[in-house]
Amino acid sequence: MLNITVWNEYRHEQTDENIRKIYPDGIHGCIAKFLGEDRELQVRTATFDMPEHGLTEEVLADTDVLVFWNHMLQDEFSDEIAERVQRHVLAGMGLVVLHSGHYSKIMRRLLGTTMTLRWKLGSRERLFCICPTHPIARGVPAWIDIPQEETYGEFFDIPKPDDIIFTGWFASGDVFRSGCTFLRGLGKIFYFQPGHEEYPTYYIPGIQKIITNAVHWCAPSARRSAPLENTAIRQSFEEEYDKL
Amino acid sequence: MLNITVWNEYRHEQTDENIRKIYPDGIHGCIAKFLGEDRELQVRTATFDMPEHGLTEEVLADTDVLVFWNHMLQDEFSDEIAERVQRHVLAGMGLVVLHSGHYSKIMRRLLGTTMTLRWKLGSRERLFCICPTHPIARGVPAWIDIPQEETYGEFFDIPKPDDIIFTGWFASGDVFRSGCTFLRGLGKIFYFQPGHEEYPTYYIPGIQKIITNAVHWCAPSARRSAPLENTAIRQSFEEEYDKL
Amino acid sequence: MLNITVWNEYRHEQTDENIRKIYPDGIHGCIAKFLGEDRELQVRTATFDMPEHGLTEEVLADTDVLVFWNHMLQDEFSDEIAERVQRHVLAGMGLVVLHSGHYSKIMRRLLGTTMTLRWKLGSRERLFCICPTHPIARGVPAWIDIPQEETYGEFFDIPKPDDIIFTGWFASGDVFRSGCTFLRGLGKIFYFQPGHEEYPTYYIPGIQKIITNAVHWCAPSARRSAPLENTAIRQSFEEEYDKL
Amino acid sequence: MLNITVWNEYRHEQTDENIRKIYPDGIHGCIAKFLGEDRELQVRTATFDMPEHGLTEEVLADTDVLVFWNHMLQDEFSDEIAERVQRHVLAGMGLVVLHSGHYSKIMRRLLGTTMTLRWKLGSRERLFCICPTHPIARGVPAWIDIPQEETYGEFFDIPKPDDIIFTGWFASGDVFRSGCTFLRGLGKIFYFQPGHEEYPTYYIPGIQKIITNAVHWCAPSARRSAPLENTAIRQSFEEEYDKL
Repeated sequence: MLNITVWNEYRHEQTDENIRKIYPDGIHGCIAKFLGEDRELQVRTATFDMPEHGLTEEVLADTDVLVFWNHMLQDEFSDEIAERVQRHVLAGMGLVVLHSGHYSKIMRRLLGTTMTLRWKLGSRERLFCICPTHPIARGVPAWIDIPQEETYGEFFDIPKPDDIIFTGWFASGDVFRSGCTFLRGLGKIFYFQPGHEEYPTYYIPGIQKIITNAVHWCAPSARRSAPLENTAIRQSFEEEYDKL
Repeated sequence: MLNITVWNEYRHEQTDENIRKIYPDGIHGCIAKFLGEDRELQVRTATFDMPEHGLTEEVLADTDVLVFWNHMLQDEFSDEIAERVQRHVLAGMGLVVLHSGHYSKIMRRLLGTTMTLRWKLGSRERLFCICPTHPIARGVPAWIDIPQEETYGEFFDIPKPDDIIFTGWFASGDVFRSGCTFLRGLGKIFYFQPGHEEYPTYYIPGIQKIITNAVHWCAPSARRSAPLENTAIRQSFEEEYDKL
Repeated sequence: MLNITVWNEYRHEQTDENIRKIYPDGIHGCIAKFLGEDRELQVRTATFDMPEHGLTEEVLADTDVLVFWNHMLQDEFSDEIAERVQRHVLAGMGLVVLHSGHYSKIMRRLLGTTMTLRWKLGSRERLFCICPTHPIARGVPAWIDIPQEETYGEFFDIPKPDDIIFTGWFASGDVFRSGCTFLRGLGKIFYFQPGHEEYPTYYIPGIQKIITNAVHWCAPSARRSAPLENTAIRQSFEEEYDKL
Repeated sequence: MLNITVWNEYRHEQTDENIRKIYPDGIHGCIAKFLGEDRELQVRTATFDMPEHGLTEEVLADTDVLVFWNHMLQDEFSDEIAERVQRHVLAGMGLVVLHSGHYSKIMRRLLGTTMTLRWKLGSRERLFCICPTHPIARGVPAWIDIPQEETYGEFFDIPKPDDIIFTGWFASGDVFRSGCTFLRGLGKIFYFQPGHEEYPTYYIPGIQKIITNAVHWCAPSARRSAPLENTAIRQSFEEEYDKL
């Protein structure tokens, strides 16, 4: 059993009538629901307005994989909590970052680049799988059509991903590295582009399949209570160091 | 002609008689000297005790490649200046980080991991080239023997390097990814492990050759006056975006 | 349940008394035995002297992962069967190649390089894990000491591995990329350096753990009865292509 | 000065009136012409109908980079000469493979996979640069529009490229990894998708710029008269092995 925390900024759904109609329980509610249908996942949610954004030390220590969606409040997000999430990822917690979460403080801290891209509202997307053997692609068709999405276009300023699993084609005449993995410390990260709040993307079965697969793939294979430290070698021939 | 800035903490050489004997002009003096023999390089130096650590906006804007060595004063290094260096790297400035500079604030910001490792004083090292076609390996022998170095041992907590060019073998019974490249934004980074201050490593011709090659390889192929920003696509079919 | 075929040249054990003493049932017998203790694995063996080397179309079609050890008879191995194994790997069959199997016709066909290296008998090895989060490293200590092994030394002429999981340190003063993964077509390949026939390496628990993990990791996530073909796109908007 | 050999199958131009009108001197003539404007390049051509396809030992030994275009005669190409080209690449000769050359015997030998893809005639292409700092992208705009090209679509069965520099967007609703590098042995390979014979793609300045850059990038940094061999280590502490 894996403990999953689905985090959502949860602001658009409260301020915009059209978005509330699409996600009446919030984006987190929609994602938590389909993840909850997987019996190996124990799912809870957290949002921006909760104390400490709902991401206390206790919650993170008890989370195997954090699913993260944000958009409007990139700057308002607490620096301290962004640093805390980074620390837990480096110690082994998995992280699935959705859509505009690419520009979150968490991702900028973990990946180190500007995370910038080109964007435009309202385009048809076709999401191609270019790494069909990856566990995140299991059971996913060769491509998925998304009737309406926000165009995200290259150049996307990220470090070279460990694997590019999905590439997006947009009718606007753009392409994007839409599904990418990054190993950082002991933590596995999956970034996934689809999911603009104005479109019902998270109801598409293929999208749900990918996010569910990603949660399983990001689950920690090793976990530590503390981050890694520079360590003096004392008796390297006689002793093994802290076993990973 | 490339503008090179060699930065050194320059503390050990002032506080420890044995180290001063090895590097009477400081580690930066030694490195600046052999780089200066390359007529395509214009070399200046900067140190911790200079105002703004000698890394003002003006200096960085005029630097093609920054060579960086530090050790004792990791925490005392200014957060603001670490962020400034990161910004210049992402905008295209090259960065060669030496030895204990792996744990600098600059590297932790750029790579996002803990950058921790295992270490031990005083071991013989043999540095193997495992990517002989890389420009940084041009003219470098299959291996270089270093009579005395500080052992750096795996597990080294870095993101997967773009290329691992050198692997270190240590008589202490350890191995290390000793020469690694990382592309971040528009900037090229080379991390190189040899160079503990108590040993005359930077006088070894093969080591000088590698650092000189690295300075050339890290030189910017594109450069921007400002960092990349998220950019709205207005007329993607009619206009090219800001040409890189 | 996974179907595993352990293939061994099985020549040394029949011609050399000392080697027979180490592996009285052949190297394949030793490996099949420890793999067989895993209840999810159904294990059979095959050897060079069987008709078609024991690697008929039927056997390969019924094999999820092939474990392969050879040494003396690289040239005598059938070209046709090497091509057949390649075809099955590209269609999804997993492949674990041990020790001198690096130079098999199978590996040279799949990886395309010379697969050459430097070698020397009789050295102590310490095998370091440099990617502790990889499934093949699960439950494996930070390093494993092997009292006697054949030194394999860089430069090892392989394509850049997808992941380098283990690096070997040798008392002879050498290093080696000892555990590497390569995805080719729909097939996952793991190359693992330890296992010279004159030393009882395959009895070491950590080595057995790694090979067992590798067999699980190499298991196909997708499988095809025929290799991939160039395919004309007929109605790309209306139809999905052959789902992977 | 680099010695470049531009190889073309040169069949379409002799059998199809429309194609001859586009490339009256053959595709090789067009490419040789624009490469020849670079004063650092010494260019010759070779074609299928020449003895040994024009790729004798002498020609290859005197070639720094081979540019290769073929299409109809994949099967008729000599196995022996495909093996010869592979051997020269592994020993350091650069290789730029264009368009349908992906499926040449040379590429299948070097990369080991099926090299299959999906294809369709007649679509508009937009070629995006997703690695703007790579030397092959120097001076190349953020994207290049190609009015008509043959669609090549994913899944493209190649090993993971060292770098993906260009991704193609097609109006047919497809994407493709259009510009990829692969290091094999001591040789650098660049695969580039544009260039169907029925369209005047090789007259587009941006396409010419990319191919010219690629020729420079693929130039050997090291070169051997013989391929690498497995080598016994005799006195590893006293002698360096054959310097690369």
